[in-house]
Amino acid sequence: MPDAKPLIEPRILKGFQDFLPEEVLARKAVVDVCESVFRKYGFVPLQTPALEYLETLLGTGGEETNKELFRLETPEGEPVAMRFDQTVPFARMMAQYPDKLKAPFRRYAIGPVWRGDRPGPGRFREFTQIDIDAAGSDSVAVDAEIIAVVCEIMVRLGASDFCVLVNNRKLIDALLEGCGIRDGAKGKHVLRVIDKLDKVGVDNIRLELGKGRIDDSGDPIPGAHLDDKTIDAILSFIAIKGDSRAEVVEKMREALPVSERSTQSLEEMTQLAACLDALGVPVAQARFAPSLARGLDYYTGPVYEIAIAEGRFGSVGGGGRYDGLVSRFLERGIACAGIAFGLDRLMAALEFLGIAPRISAQSQVLVAFVGRVAEAELLKVAKELRDAGLRAEVYFGNKRGMKHQLAHADRCQIPVAVIVGEDELAKGLVSIKDLLAGKDQREDIADHDAYRKAGRTAQVTVPRSEMITTIREMLGNE
Amino acid sequence: MPDAKPLIEPRILKGFQDFLPEEVLARKAVVDVCESVFRKYGFVPLQTPALEYLETLLGTGGEETNKELFRLETPEGEPVAMRFDQTVPFARMMAQYPDKLKAPFRRYAIGPVWRGDRPGPGRFREFTQIDIDAAGSDSVAVDAEIIAVVCEIMVRLGASDFCVLVNNRKLIDALLEGCGIRDGAKGKHVLRVIDKLDKVGVDNIRLELGKGRIDDSGDPIPGAHLDDKTIDAILSFIAIKGDSRAEVVEKMREALPVSERSTQSLEEMTQLAACLDALGVPVAQARFAPSLARGLDYYTGPVYEIAIAEGRFGSVGGGGRYDGLVSRFLERGIACAGIAFGLDRLMAALEFLGIAPRISAQSQVLVAFVGRVAEAELLKVAKELRDAGLRAEVYFGNKRGMKHQLAHADRCQIPVAVIVGEDELAKGLVSIKDLLAGKDQREDIADHDAYRKAGRTAQVTVPRSEMITTIREMLGNE
Repeated sequence: MPDAKPLIEPRILKGFQDFLPEEVLARKAVVDVCESVFRKYGFVPLQTPALEYLETLLGTGGEETNKELFRLETPEGEPVAMRFDQTVPFARMMAQYPDKLKAPFRRYAIGPVWRGDRPGPGRFREFTQIDIDAAGSDSVAVDAEIIAVVCEIMVRLGASDFCVLVNNRKLIDALLEGCGIRDGAKGKHVLRVIDKLDKVGVDNIRLELGKGRIDDSGDPIPGAHLDDKTIDAILSFIAIKGDSRAEVVEKMREALPVSERSTQSLEEMTQLAACLDALGVPVAQARFAPSLARGLDYYTGPVYEIAIAEGRFGSVGGGGRYDGLVSRFLERGIACAGIAFGLDRLMAALEFLGIAPRISAQSQVLVAFVGRVAEAELLKVAKELRDAGLRAEVYFGNKRGMKHQLAHADRCQIPVAVIVGEDELAKGLVSIKDLLAGKDQREDIADHDAYRKAGRTAQVTVPRSEMITTIREMLGNE
Repeated sequence: MPDAKPLIEPRILKGFQDFLPEEVLARKAVVDVCESVFRKYGFVPLQTPALEYLETLLGTGGEETNKELFRLETPEGEPVAMRFDQTVPFARMMAQYPDKLKAPFRRYAIGPVWRGDRPGPGRFREFTQIDIDAAGSDSVAVDAEIIAVVCEIMVRLGASDFCVLVNNRKLIDALLEGCGIRDGAKGKHVLRVIDKLDKVGVDNIRLELGKGRIDDSGDPIPGAHLDDKTIDAILSFIAIKGDSRAEVVEKMREALPVSERSTQSLEEMTQLAACLDALGVPVAQARFAPSLARGLDYYTGPVYEIAIAEGRFGSVGGGGRYDGLVSRFLERGIACAGIAFGLDRLMAALEFLGIAPRISAQSQVLVAFVGRVAEAELLKVAKELRDAGLRAEVYFGNKRGMKHQLAHADRCQIPVAVIVGEDELAKGLVSIKDLLAGKDQREDIADHDAYRKAGRTAQVTVPRSEMITTIREMLGNE
C-alpha cells in the first residue's frame, strides 16, 4: 500500500452534538409546534448568519471581553465571532433595516448559538435557541401574549406539569426601596440571594440576608447584613401565594410600602393578570411568583420563567421586558419583551415528563426480493407504494440474501416487507410479510423456500392489485 | 450624557445573508417539500454540528491545506473549523457510530456550510446545502432513485423547465482509453476541456483539444495536442443525442471501442435507463448527456447535474457515485451515491422560473381599537380569532391613533382589521374592515368618526357572534 494514509479518529468536539434520525425528527416536530403557535399570535421569522462582527457581539464596552465567544477571522482578517444568542443579531437587523423592519414588530428565531462554556451533562457549546421578541410596545398586554404563547406550546406538546412563573422587577425595587435599600450594590446582592431560594431553602436565605453562613463544603458565604425587620419583610414578600393572580397582587399591595414605584408596579401586575385571564391562561399554567429574580439586572419590568415539574426538573427558559434593544446601534432604544428557551433543554424536559415525540424515521415498507429479479421490477413496486402515499424503500445493500434483507428491516424497524419473487412476479403475485408479527421466528429464514415451508400466518401472497390494501391493513394493525 | 458610548454600525459580514420573514417562510416551504420527498424514498435525517476538528475536514494529507476553511480554536486550544460541506461530517458519523448507523443507509441533511470563497452575486460564504447520500450499495438502482427524488422535488415545486443531466465517468474513461489516452494528466486535461462545452462552444473546444487558442482577453489557452481523428471521436461522442435514454446508450455503444471498460459502463447505463423508466421518470426530466463532465476526478460511476432552464439559468446542484466514504476514518471504504444542491441557488432558480413560493408571513387579522378600550378586551377578541384558527395580532405599538394602527396593517399587509370601539363593545358589536378593498381611501382616516362618516362598503359592523363568519368571507374574497 504505497499511498496508505494514517487513519483519522472519527470524533466530535466536546460539548457538541450529533443527532440520529429519530432525534432530528422529534426536534423538528417540537419546532413545528412552536412555529405554528408563534405564527398564530402574529410573530414572524427572521434569520441571521452564524457569524457577526466581534464589535456587534461585544458592544462598545472595550474592556468587556466575553471569554465564551468562539472567535475567528474573515479571509480579509476582520475579527468576527459565532453568535452567542439571537437577541443581539435581532437588534442588529432592526437597526440595519429600518425601512423593512418597523416597530411594532414581533419576530421569532430558531437556530443554533455557540458558547465556549464548560460543557457538562445537558450543557452544550452548540445549542438551539427558540426566541420570540416583541419590539416597540410598553404595554404588559405584550408580556401576557408571550406567556400565553409559551403555555399554548407546552399544552400542544402534551405537557400538564409546567408553570410559567411571573414576577416584576419593579416590585422588588419598590420592596427594597421601602426597606431603605437604595444602594445599588446591596440591592443586587439581595437579588442574588433571593434567586437562590429554591436551591438552598428559606433558612439559608435568612442567614445570607443577615450575617452570612458556612456552606456545605465549609466555605463562608458573606451576608448582606440587613436588619431583622428588613429580612422579615423580604422573606414574607417572596413567600406570598394566592389562589388567583389577582389575589397575589392584593397580598403584594398589603406588603409593599406605598410609593410611586409600588403603585406603578402593582398597576402593571393588575393589568397583566387581567390580560392573562382574557387570554384564557389558567392560574396553574402562569403563576405570580414574588420570589422569581432571574438576572433582574437586565430586565426593566415583568420577568418570566418556564418551570417544568417544579422542584424536580427546573427551567427550560425565560425572559422578560427589557429596554434598550438596538441602543448599541442607534441613539433611541426600542422597548421590548421577549422569551428564549433552549430546544435541547425542552427536549430533555419532554423526555423527563415522558411525552417526548416518538416519530419513526424509517420506511413503512421494505421492497425485498428473492431469486433473480431485475432491480427495475423492484423499483416499479416501490413507485406503486409511494404513489399510494407510503414511505417505501428498495433493499439495495451489497449483501443480497433474504437474511440480510430482513436483518436490515429489523435494524431499521420497518414494519412490512413486500417480497418480490421470480415466480410470483410472472403470475402477478406478491408476498407481503408482517415483520412485527413474525419477529420471533425471523432469524432462521435464510431463503424463500424455507420461508414458505414455515407457513407463517404473518405472511400472505396476494395479487398485485391487492398489494396496497393488504399493506394498509397490516400497518393499521400496529 | 456621562456614560454615552459610541454607536456601532449595524452591518453584516460580506458574503453572509439576513433573511426577512417572507424569505424564511419561502425557504422553509421548499425545504419541507424536499424533506417529504426524501422520506417517501426512505431517506432519514442526520444532523451534525457547525464545527469539526480540523483534521476531520482536511483529511490526513498534511500538505493539503484548504484556504477556504473558516478556522478557529476551541477553548482548550484545539484546531477546528466550520464545516465546508455535509459529506465529510456524514462520513465521520458513519465511522463513529458503526452500531447505530449500518450500511445500507440513506440519509439526508439540510444545513448551513461555510466557505471563505470570494463572494459575489449569488455566491455566499454561508449557504444552505441539501444533501442526500445512499451508502452501502454498488447498484445503479440507487442512482436512479436519487435522480427520481430530484425530479419529484422539482415537479412538486411547480417546475417544468428543468432536466437532470446524467453521464458516467466510466464512459469517458473508455472513450479516452479507445483513443489511446492512458496518461492521467492528459485525460484530466481533456475532461476539463469537455466540461467547458456549454460555456465556450464546440469550435473553441476543438481548438483546445488540438493546438490551443487565444481567449477573448488575449490570453493563450494551451491545447491538449490530440490528433484530428481523436478530436473528432471525442466531439462526436459528446454530441450524441437521442429520443430515449436507451437510444442514447445504443449510439454510445456504436461510438465506443469494444473493451471491458466500455462494455461494463454501457451495461450500467442500460440498467440505469431501465431503472429510470421503472420509476416513471420522463426523458424530458432526466436525459443522458455524454458531455457532462462535472469534476469527474472525484466520481467513480454515474454523475448527474440538475439543469434549470437549460442555457439560461444553469445548475442548482449535482452529484454522482463515489467510493471511499469513511475511508478517511476506516480501512474499508463504503460505496456511496449522492447529490447535493444549494438551497440559495434553488431559491434563485425558482425565482427565475417565476414559481418561488409566496407565503404571507403576516397575521390575517389585526385587532385594532378606537377610543378607550381595555387591552384585555382586545386580547379576548384575539383569542376568539385564534381559537377559530386565524392568525391574529393585537395592535400594540406605542403610537395609539387609528392612523398608526392602519399604517401598521398596511405595512404588514394584514388584509382584515377588527375594530373594537367603546360603544360597540357595550352593544356586543364589532366593526370589521376589509383593508385591501378600502386601500385607496385609507390614508385620510384619522379617527373612527371620520371613518364612519365615509360610509365605506369595505367596512361592516356586526354582532360579535358573526365576527368569525364575516372575516372568513372577507378573507375568502381575496
